[in-house]
Amino acid sequence: MDTLKGPAIQDLYPEDFAHCFGCGKDNSHGHQLKSFVQGDEVIAHFTPAPHHVSVPGFVYGGLLASLVDCHAMAAAAAAAELAVGRRIGEGQVARYVTAALRVEYLKPTPLGGELEIRGRVTEQSEKKAVVALTVSVSGTITVSGEAVAVRMPKNMERRG
Amino acid sequence: MDTLKGPAIQDLYPEDFAHCFGCGKDNSHGHQLKSFVQGDEVIAHFTPAPHHVSVPGFVYGGLLASLVDCHAMAAAAAAAELAVGRRIGEGQVARYVTAALRVEYLKPTPLGGELEIRGRVTEQSEKKAVVALTVSVSGTITVSGEAVAVRMPKNMERRG
Repeated sequence: MDTLKGPAIQDLYPEDFAHCFGCGKDNSHGHQLKSFVQGDEVIAHFTPAPHHVSVPGFVYGGLLASLVDCHAMAAAAAAAELAVGRRIGEGQVARYVTAALRVEYLKPTPLGGELEIRGRVTEQSEKKAVVALTVSVSGTITVSGEAVAVRMPKNMERRG
Repeated sequence: MDTLKGPAIQDLYPEDFAHCFGCGKDNSHGHQLKSFVQGDEVIAHFTPAPHHVSVPGFVYGGLLASLVDCHAMAAAAAAAELAVGRRIGEGQVARYVTAALRVEYLKPTPLGGELEIRGRVTEQSEKKAVVALTVSVSGTITVSGEAVAVRMPKNMERRG
């Protein structure tokens, strides 16, 4: 599979908000998903661990939902940067959080291969974005989803 | 919080399908969610770990989606037993898998307390159920969701 290029969007989150279990670079227990702008899409690759199963041989749906979720927030953050004329990597990006998430499990996702998560922003305003996503393995789409991302509200800006 | 009574639904899954990362008793790396029939609802309690954060101080949305998902499958499995007149604990229950999951994050879920996940089956047929769910902490509902559960298809009955 091609190597993804450019800085990972999650590595540009403000330090105080880089602890997400799904994608924060500062969460050593987490998945550390890395999403990259590639043309008009945002793409990530992720290989589940052997224990990330629903039933033996198939990827846990909760993990798939988590990856879709974090990837969508990255896509929203990147889109907000591009919308104001900045390039990804020029500075920090804004942190988005999930208002709503919908995931459809089109078919079982076999464990063992690298997953590709693709996202595309379908609606965008100053504080909100809607992102359409797919997860595929070996070229077969197994999951589709949609997430509504909102700019992180002030009431989440506290220290844990 | 009251102690939940009766056998956990997930402990009644067939041994071959008790490895789910979210709720399988045989997945030592996983969350081991336990869901209990209480009246006409299914209820689970879960305390997130300190690293289960989205941003500091708040529970990771991917974990919340995962708990909603597993809890819904348990609710569907229990409902199928009750529909044919069996009591929960009399024997194994069928394994359901997720066809679709929708989660709405109504407000940030603060880290630190025990979560309560409640589910209620709203539609039920022989091979499918729809489950409506909430997650609350300290009596405040922070997440609502809906899951479509389907009886595990034969093509998932392989060994990993």
